[in-house]
Amino acid sequence: MDPTADHRYVITLSCPDTTGIVARIATFLADAGGWIVEAGYHSDPHTGWFFTRQVVRADSLPFDADELRARFADVAAELGGDASWTVTDSLRPKTAVLLVSTEPHCLHDLLGRVAAGELPVRLAAVIGNHEPLGGIVRAHGVPFHHVPFPPPGDDPDARAAAKERAFAQVRDMVGEHAPDAVVLARFMQILPPQLCREWAGRAINIHHSFLPSFVGARPYHQAYARGVKLIGATCHYVTPELDAGPIIEQDVIRVDHGDTAADMVRRGRDIERLVLARGLRWHLEDRVLVHGNKTIVFR
Amino acid sequence: MDPTADHRYVITLSCPDTTGIVARIATFLADAGGWIVEAGYHSDPHTGWFFTRQVVRADSLPFDADELRARFADVAAELGGDASWTVTDSLRPKTAVLLVSTEPHCLHDLLGRVAAGELPVRLAAVIGNHEPLGGIVRAHGVPFHHVPFPPPGDDPDARAAAKERAFAQVRDMVGEHAPDAVVLARFMQILPPQLCREWAGRAINIHHSFLPSFVGARPYHQAYARGVKLIGATCHYVTPELDAGPIIEQDVIRVDHGDTAADMVRRGRDIERLVLARGLRWHLEDRVLVHGNKTIVFR
Amino acid sequence: MDPTADHRYVITLSCPDTTGIVARIATFLADAGGWIVEAGYHSDPHTGWFFTRQVVRADSLPFDADELRARFADVAAELGGDASWTVTDSLRPKTAVLLVSTEPHCLHDLLGRVAAGELPVRLAAVIGNHEPLGGIVRAHGVPFHHVPFPPPGDDPDARAAAKERAFAQVRDMVGEHAPDAVVLARFMQILPPQLCREWAGRAINIHHSFLPSFVGARPYHQAYARGVKLIGATCHYVTPELDAGPIIEQDVIRVDHGDTAADMVRRGRDIERLVLARGLRWHLEDRVLVHGNKTIVFR
Amino acid sequence: MDPTADHRYVITLSCPDTTGIVARIATFLADAGGWIVEAGYHSDPHTGWFFTRQVVRADSLPFDADELRARFADVAAELGGDASWTVTDSLRPKTAVLLVSTEPHCLHDLLGRVAAGELPVRLAAVIGNHEPLGGIVRAHGVPFHHVPFPPPGDDPDARAAAKERAFAQVRDMVGEHAPDAVVLARFMQILPPQLCREWAGRAINIHHSFLPSFVGARPYHQAYARGVKLIGATCHYVTPELDAGPIIEQDVIRVDHGDTAADMVRRGRDIERLVLARGLRWHLEDRVLVHGNKTIVFR
Repeated sequence: MDPTADHRYVITLSCPDTTGIVARIATFLADAGGWIVEAGYHSDPHTGWFFTRQVVRADSLPFDADELRARFADVAAELGGDASWTVTDSLRPKTAVLLVSTEPHCLHDLLGRVAAGELPVRLAAVIGNHEPLGGIVRAHGVPFHHVPFPPPGDDPDARAAAKERAFAQVRDMVGEHAPDAVVLARFMQILPPQLCREWAGRAINIHHSFLPSFVGARPYHQAYARGVKLIGATCHYVTPELDAGPIIEQDVIRVDHGDTAADMVRRGRDIERLVLARGLRWHLEDRVLVHGNKTIVFR
Repeated sequence: MDPTADHRYVITLSCPDTTGIVARIATFLADAGGWIVEAGYHSDPHTGWFFTRQVVRADSLPFDADELRARFADVAAELGGDASWTVTDSLRPKTAVLLVSTEPHCLHDLLGRVAAGELPVRLAAVIGNHEPLGGIVRAHGVPFHHVPFPPPGDDPDARAAAKERAFAQVRDMVGEHAPDAVVLARFMQILPPQLCREWAGRAINIHHSFLPSFVGARPYHQAYARGVKLIGATCHYVTPELDAGPIIEQDVIRVDHGDTAADMVRRGRDIERLVLARGLRWHLEDRVLVHGNKTIVFR
Repeated sequence: MDPTADHRYVITLSCPDTTGIVARIATFLADAGGWIVEAGYHSDPHTGWFFTRQVVRADSLPFDADELRARFADVAAELGGDASWTVTDSLRPKTAVLLVSTEPHCLHDLLGRVAAGELPVRLAAVIGNHEPLGGIVRAHGVPFHHVPFPPPGDDPDARAAAKERAFAQVRDMVGEHAPDAVVLARFMQILPPQLCREWAGRAINIHHSFLPSFVGARPYHQAYARGVKLIGATCHYVTPELDAGPIIEQDVIRVDHGDTAADMVRRGRDIERLVLARGLRWHLEDRVLVHGNKTIVFR
Repeated sequence: MDPTADHRYVITLSCPDTTGIVARIATFLADAGGWIVEAGYHSDPHTGWFFTRQVVRADSLPFDADELRARFADVAAELGGDASWTVTDSLRPKTAVLLVSTEPHCLHDLLGRVAAGELPVRLAAVIGNHEPLGGIVRAHGVPFHHVPFPPPGDDPDARAAAKERAFAQVRDMVGEHAPDAVVLARFMQILPPQLCREWAGRAINIHHSFLPSFVGARPYHQAYARGVKLIGATCHYVTPELDAGPIIEQDVIRVDHGDTAADMVRRGRDIERLVLARGLRWHLEDRVLVHGNKTIVFR
């Protein structure tokens, strides 16, 4: 099989909606001989914006990714100054850094998926605020960095300072890899606003509730107290406001009166794993476009 | 087929948990020759309460429902003064009164289910604050009563008085039938606290969101604004606090960026219908035990 | 609000895939000022075919539906002789004829949805092989025709002849309305091959199993005997081979060891209703393109 | 916290149904002071059998597991010669042996769950017919044994003999551990009838389709060819007839026309993982009772 047969360029575009955008892009691609293998379009009647994601066979174009970018920039420029766009090359593997704490299930799941070739990503590093998960990370051939965070009991001021130092360290470690995704795989620490802004659109969190229900700490215990009949998980981009960023994916699982809060914690892991893995995959495949506080997900 | 073959007694019991309750009840039934065809048990480790629902073939017992009640009262008395219990007879059909407004989908669904013999209930009456749904209700052979409610625009005091009169009328109409269930099938009026108390454990509402998300008005528009990826519906007992009563059943349906708020309104109806029909069925079959603000549902 | 604001043309196209199709169609529409509000594309790498569905605001085009058809015919002609396409006008209401037997749940559901304005269709007639459902159909203002079918017990030859006569009558009644959809809403009669061909692409059946499991009679009893943990329903186009036509939609519901075959029959109705309503809606909205024995569904 | 607080005995019983069984067991437990924390009952009206599973706090009984077994044997004996029962002790950890081939996703998932303390089992060994998965197994501290199986291309007779030798080796390795579960985690080899019988009720397979659809090889490709709208996975006990054993658990995931067979293979893994993990958990917790070709699952 031709190794270039799977070589793809992925184009995404967000711009104010107007007549003729699809024609403009399609004509641009057709004129260059571009073979579109996947195309998603969305017109938002509420905001008047247009969104598209197109996947083109690289071997159908007579030029490379850089040239595609240069030419597509001209197309996008015609679509208004607010247009934002990306062109990515499937031959350039995406990278991710995972942030973890003590809960291992999402980490195990992601490591297993990467090892199985299911997730199109290279794990550049895993950073954990506790040591024990380091062993399995390294067994997967991925570097593990231990950055201790101050425990809850400490003096508030000393704790704040220690936390700041820890986050500075995390920031530097992540920065070294300039990853396409920073995944908070049950990291359990609230990112400082500065990091939220720095990693905007790349920092992905898994929250263990069906947001906007049960924001904040111990959501399964909140769910248990309320007596809900389904529990859920939410994968979202991190923003400075806690658990309020654009939602990428959510799912739920049925519970009943027989499930204690501890049962919900255990059973919810199945949904956390799935929802995070799906959301991360879509992010890595450039399927997620953010607009305001919402996402367009071209599945 | 023997017409008495399906004759059943349904026993429910809630009481403080202790060793030997199951044995006490089971021995009582076995001594009378009772053939248990369904049995559910739940011990709540958190509150220390015990709950059970048992279905017994009527033809296996040498006495009738009244005698069963008299004898079971003695058993329950031994289990502590806080015990509450019911014995219902499947030959006595349950009755319901529906309260509706302009949204017809839940009404149509319930009428269809009753007509198809799917719901074990006799509809004693439908009360609507608008006339148009009367036709189809009467076509199903069910009495329809029109009780107008004051429109939003009126003078607040006059409106409050008119509303009070309307609710008094509704209260009287419902009271005439002493129904086992008062179903707010998208009634869109907030019950006065007095009626909530009077109908406690019998008034069932369908709220068009996955509670506790999106309490109150226009939940689909709230859901659209937040950008959630699933929308839901919640069937719950009505209590004086809005949308905060014990949840009987919930379910969700997937939406995406292509769904407008209007699409969510339309698509959510499928879940509202299902969730209300399931919750009402379980209530009618004595499958739902309320404890504090939560339900035990023996499915 | 401008009544023409919701006036839409829906274009569908299936043709052999090649570079430039999207550009050709998009340019055609853009040149005429067409405002695309919804667009779906699918390239099938296996068969090498291309499929699209586009929704255009009618008020954005300077011509009417007939002229759009005439012009689009030229576009389609350039795309190869095998191309098939449709242009429908949202102002022309779709019509459907329902075929029913004794099971009322799908009928009630569809009548309720049409009454609630949820399904974009006019019910031209309901044809039933038993009389009792006629009352509710007529209460909804829809004509009901009773066409008796021979009962199973009869002499085979006489029965075949009677069945042929009955189907001839059904065929004529349906033919009078030239409906966009002929819906077998639990009709329980196997269509003769001739009718399958005549109604190809318009006859929609709901089968009460998750096909290809449990083809044929009494699928819930088959499911019960096998001990499956989910039961389902399948909405598909009718073809001469029983339960083997292109699948439009399927869904499932969880069952467990406590569900008897009768419980499955009852609980499965919820899925049958939903799956048929969804499949029919998509058919009526020109969202379903058939290719070979499979469907492309642009949701 | 008292370490014995979580110490439990799990009793399961299957016997011909008759009046008084519940009373007999409950009285037996109550007389000994037994505190029942979970109880499930099922009467099968079709076969006339009764099934129960009860969980008792060990510290509520004045004797140990062996004595409980001895006493319960007397109770069971009264219930008829066909009664079968088990008493297990939560302090005795269950063990499992996994059989794997090249597909790693179920293996990774189970290793991760065991490492996270989610599955109540000790992995005694993993046996694989290919070497590469050995590394990650050993990194988890679990012994890995490589037992090569003959490749498809060989001479049939030589291949059959080699396969027999390989299975003999697997049988011996498994036998050494006398595991509570032999998990075919995408093992891809058909067990010889002799092993099916030897491991009856303990050998658990994950089949990558919603059985009974798509028995045998390449089920996702069969699903793709049929054009189904949901794909599934089935966890079942292995019996000599291929993919026809008692079903423990099933689930499905939505696919659409955009999913190729390869996409289905990838996406189906999420369901395979979940369904196998759930089925195995229930088996290990003695929640699954087999009767004929069906299971009762006390969840």
